[in-house]
Amino acid sequence: MSIEPQPQPSSESNEFAPTLRFKLYTIIFGTSTPAGKRFDLVLIYLIVFSVLALMLDSIRWVSDLYGPYIFAFEWLFTILFTAEYLVRVYCSPKRWAYVFSFYGLVDLISILPSYVSLFVPGANFLLAIRLLRVLRIFRILKLVRYLSEANVLIRAVMMSRRKISIFAMSVLVLSVIFGSLMYIVEGPENGFSSIPKSIYWTIVTITTVGYGDITPHTVLGQIIAATAMLTGYSILAVPTGIFTAELAQEMQRDRRIRNCINCSRSGHEADSKFCRFCGAGMEEKSTPESKD
Amino acid sequence: MSIEPQPQPSSESNEFAPTLRFKLYTIIFGTSTPAGKRFDLVLIYLIVFSVLALMLDSIRWVSDLYGPYIFAFEWLFTILFTAEYLVRVYCSPKRWAYVFSFYGLVDLISILPSYVSLFVPGANFLLAIRLLRVLRIFRILKLVRYLSEANVLIRAVMMSRRKISIFAMSVLVLSVIFGSLMYIVEGPENGFSSIPKSIYWTIVTITTVGYGDITPHTVLGQIIAATAMLTGYSILAVPTGIFTAELAQEMQRDRRIRNCINCSRSGHEADSKFCRFCGAGMEEKSTPESKD
Amino acid sequence: MSIEPQPQPSSESNEFAPTLRFKLYTIIFGTSTPAGKRFDLVLIYLIVFSVLALMLDSIRWVSDLYGPYIFAFEWLFTILFTAEYLVRVYCSPKRWAYVFSFYGLVDLISILPSYVSLFVPGANFLLAIRLLRVLRIFRILKLVRYLSEANVLIRAVMMSRRKISIFAMSVLVLSVIFGSLMYIVEGPENGFSSIPKSIYWTIVTITTVGYGDITPHTVLGQIIAATAMLTGYSILAVPTGIFTAELAQEMQRDRRIRNCINCSRSGHEADSKFCRFCGAGMEEKSTPESKD
Amino acid sequence: MSIEPQPQPSSESNEFAPTLRFKLYTIIFGTSTPAGKRFDLVLIYLIVFSVLALMLDSIRWVSDLYGPYIFAFEWLFTILFTAEYLVRVYCSPKRWAYVFSFYGLVDLISILPSYVSLFVPGANFLLAIRLLRVLRIFRILKLVRYLSEANVLIRAVMMSRRKISIFAMSVLVLSVIFGSLMYIVEGPENGFSSIPKSIYWTIVTITTVGYGDITPHTVLGQIIAATAMLTGYSILAVPTGIFTAELAQEMQRDRRIRNCINCSRSGHEADSKFCRFCGAGMEEKSTPESKD
Repeated sequence: MSIEPQPQPSSESNEFAPTLRFKLYTIIFGTSTPAGKRFDLVLIYLIVFSVLALMLDSIRWVSDLYGPYIFAFEWLFTILFTAEYLVRVYCSPKRWAYVFSFYGLVDLISILPSYVSLFVPGANFLLAIRLLRVLRIFRILKLVRYLSEANVLIRAVMMSRRKISIFAMSVLVLSVIFGSLMYIVEGPENGFSSIPKSIYWTIVTITTVGYGDITPHTVLGQIIAATAMLTGYSILAVPTGIFTAELAQEMQRDRRIRNCINCSRSGHEADSKFCRFCGAGMEEKSTPESKD
Repeated sequence: MSIEPQPQPSSESNEFAPTLRFKLYTIIFGTSTPAGKRFDLVLIYLIVFSVLALMLDSIRWVSDLYGPYIFAFEWLFTILFTAEYLVRVYCSPKRWAYVFSFYGLVDLISILPSYVSLFVPGANFLLAIRLLRVLRIFRILKLVRYLSEANVLIRAVMMSRRKISIFAMSVLVLSVIFGSLMYIVEGPENGFSSIPKSIYWTIVTITTVGYGDITPHTVLGQIIAATAMLTGYSILAVPTGIFTAELAQEMQRDRRIRNCINCSRSGHEADSKFCRFCGAGMEEKSTPESKD
Repeated sequence: MSIEPQPQPSSESNEFAPTLRFKLYTIIFGTSTPAGKRFDLVLIYLIVFSVLALMLDSIRWVSDLYGPYIFAFEWLFTILFTAEYLVRVYCSPKRWAYVFSFYGLVDLISILPSYVSLFVPGANFLLAIRLLRVLRIFRILKLVRYLSEANVLIRAVMMSRRKISIFAMSVLVLSVIFGSLMYIVEGPENGFSSIPKSIYWTIVTITTVGYGDITPHTVLGQIIAATAMLTGYSILAVPTGIFTAELAQEMQRDRRIRNCINCSRSGHEADSKFCRFCGAGMEEKSTPESKD
Repeated sequence: MSIEPQPQPSSESNEFAPTLRFKLYTIIFGTSTPAGKRFDLVLIYLIVFSVLALMLDSIRWVSDLYGPYIFAFEWLFTILFTAEYLVRVYCSPKRWAYVFSFYGLVDLISILPSYVSLFVPGANFLLAIRLLRVLRIFRILKLVRYLSEANVLIRAVMMSRRKISIFAMSVLVLSVIFGSLMYIVEGPENGFSSIPKSIYWTIVTITTVGYGDITPHTVLGQIIAATAMLTGYSILAVPTGIFTAELAQEMQRDRRIRNCINCSRSGHEADSKFCRFCGAGMEEKSTPESKD
């Protein structure tokens, strides 16, 4: 489940004693201490604000009026994120492992464009790269992973992964067949200008999005379209059924797993705060994993 | 679950004896007596009619033709609701608690605009406030809460609240990413005039609403759009799965909780009218909660 | 579950001996005999063809070309359905009970317009009444009711009826609130010309249909619209959850009910053809109800 | 479940000894040997590439620029598929059974158009037939069938088939009734030009696709449309409920069926790799069926 190597910092190790570097490590990479939690919250706010700044900058009249202020904020965020990146590299037990990890690369790439734009004029095409910063929001999800609720959801998604991909492949095959049929029946004169475009239309129809930018005009086309709609409407049941069945199973398993620390009996609901056999308080399941 | 403080009127208290004020209290705030139920029904009809009057008044030709009649009805409703508000304040055991409760404020705010419009001309902007009266319809839901059916639904929603909010956050992150991508790929010339507008488009697409006011025109844009659609179509399974799994669990628990009064065995279906072990009649579950 | 009174023809009764009338009764109203099944099949085909004729007649060029032929078919169907109606009245044990039953009235009303059009010119407005014939297709559903599969479905729908109506009411309240908000925010200049129209737009949006004939143009309107979409997308989970949970329960109950005739043990799947304890063949559950 | 006759090649048979023909048979029709799996993978890639070539050819500017290259690839694929077809016929134990089987006919029909186009000019109408090649992608699904995941899905679909068809019929009846109503209420002047077109509109609305090419303009029409939307939105629950309930049952049955080879106890999860009673490794369920 983990994307990057997560070296478990052991306090027994001589080389990695509770120095400043280790303290920084527990704050930046850890989630169990109050300081670590606070750092994560601040980081999330910074990411959200930097994404908001980018969004506002994309609205013409806002950018015309407040362009310089947004520019200043952009640089403030860039400097802060640069500092964070350098500290992360500094305090990582295995520096190169972090640098080449998924989030390590995202962290680097999302701060580079601002520096590049200093030397190379024409920041337009660089905007694309700066938006990668949005990906950092997924860190919130990483925090969230430690809640048992999210764990059940993620496990259910993981369990249903293979079944969902079989379903997705069937949808693609269906889209190719319906798309080809519509291309032949309706033809370029009704907007179905090529098979790929017809497949795009089929996906719009089967997923019940229905923009209406391309619509069938012939009677046969409308019959095929109605069939595609009814198919899409019915097979929507398949992913829902898969996920629901897996989730119900996961939730049952979760209840079985959870044991009381006092009497060690299982079978408690996920939201129980007290053991239903001996009345002892039940702690939140805390897995001693490190963060990021 | 309760939004406002609900003082339990105890008949033992000297100060709060079965006077007129207490009688009014049981009628207006209570639901267990026939008079209390009748009062609630009348109130619901009044609210529905006042909302209908507001709706009709918003249609130009109706307002042109029957304006004066609707105006008269408006004032009738205002006077009735004012009377109700004053009686509510009068008979509440803790008056200020009611006045500053959620429904107390809604009750006050929804009658004020009519009076303000007497002194200040230009009722147009006040219309907005008068519409708050619609919120009073939610009182019907409060009545409904006492049915065991609604209880199961509400508990299932409460149980799945945390899981649903994790899901909602993931949808928002997805919308930001897809929206930014589409802004870069399609650009202002195809209607994606800013990132917030692109995010609006992404929500329209992911929820499979698909207005068609903004549609992708480039090939890459259509590929990303198709991906967004398929994503939206598949993750629709997540809230459904969460709610279904929780509801199934709640319904099972509901069956376990319900005991026969005669033989006190549990395990009865929610709709059983007779105990399946001893044949004794089973009463509706009635919780002695006060209303509003 | 039955809409009309269904007198159980008892062969013991002197007055209602196995005469021609009783034979006709078993054929027309019964479903257990081969003749009764055959009659129903023929009737279904006739209804389907008469509906198809009406459909084709509504297409201008078909009606221009083949008008007289369709007209002839119309009269053929009218005469056949008239004959069926008269025989039904003749062989019913309680004639008036049939005549005033739901399907008795549908049968009468669906043949009347053709006769009325003989004396009164201007068949245009009568078309509306003739289309009631479509309702007879629901007889197919009556036939289908005897299959155990449909029984489970109908019972699950019946069980979830109360929960679904609570949900429907919440959706209506939501539509009123979102509709009023949009009317205030967007106003008549953006197509939201009245509150009822805004409510229509809200229903189009919440159900994720999304025609795109009315779309929000202001930023605040788009934010409210996005909220309405996400709400609609999430609460879609509620009816699905309700129905799924009820259906799962019904299917389990169905299995519990089904007993082997040989060893009378229960717990068989709905599709089992042999008892899994003694190996004896298991018959289809046949309830000795009369038809229509 | 099998569409075509699948003769089980028995190595005991004298006539069908492990000759070249039998070797080819195990490679082309079999899936258990590494060679058979490799052959299937190559075939899938070829089909995907030939479908991609057809798609690209349908885009005008691609066909204008790279027409000759695509033409060459088309012929390459045709020759390869012809060779495959001939070898299939050669090594089939029962040749005519293969030739007249579903995939035998698809194989033949999908290579014919290219040859016919040599003698008959005007390949436009032949394009339709060549697209049948897309159907061969379903062979991937055949491969996939051997995964236990897909087995559970297919069994759940099979189990829910009858219930789903009852649902589909109800949707069709609903569409006819709503369609007829809208034809009468809105009429040809608002785009509802005939009953079949109104039924098409109803299907677009009930499945929540909502193109917006035809929309109601009268108040009564919008009320009926809103009813149709809410109906469609609610009954979406039915297929989902059916499939979910069946799938949950199938998954439970799957767990019951799976036995440990060491201690032969059942009740293992589908993804367990080790027996939870004795710790012995558990193999993938492999059914010794032949392929294609």
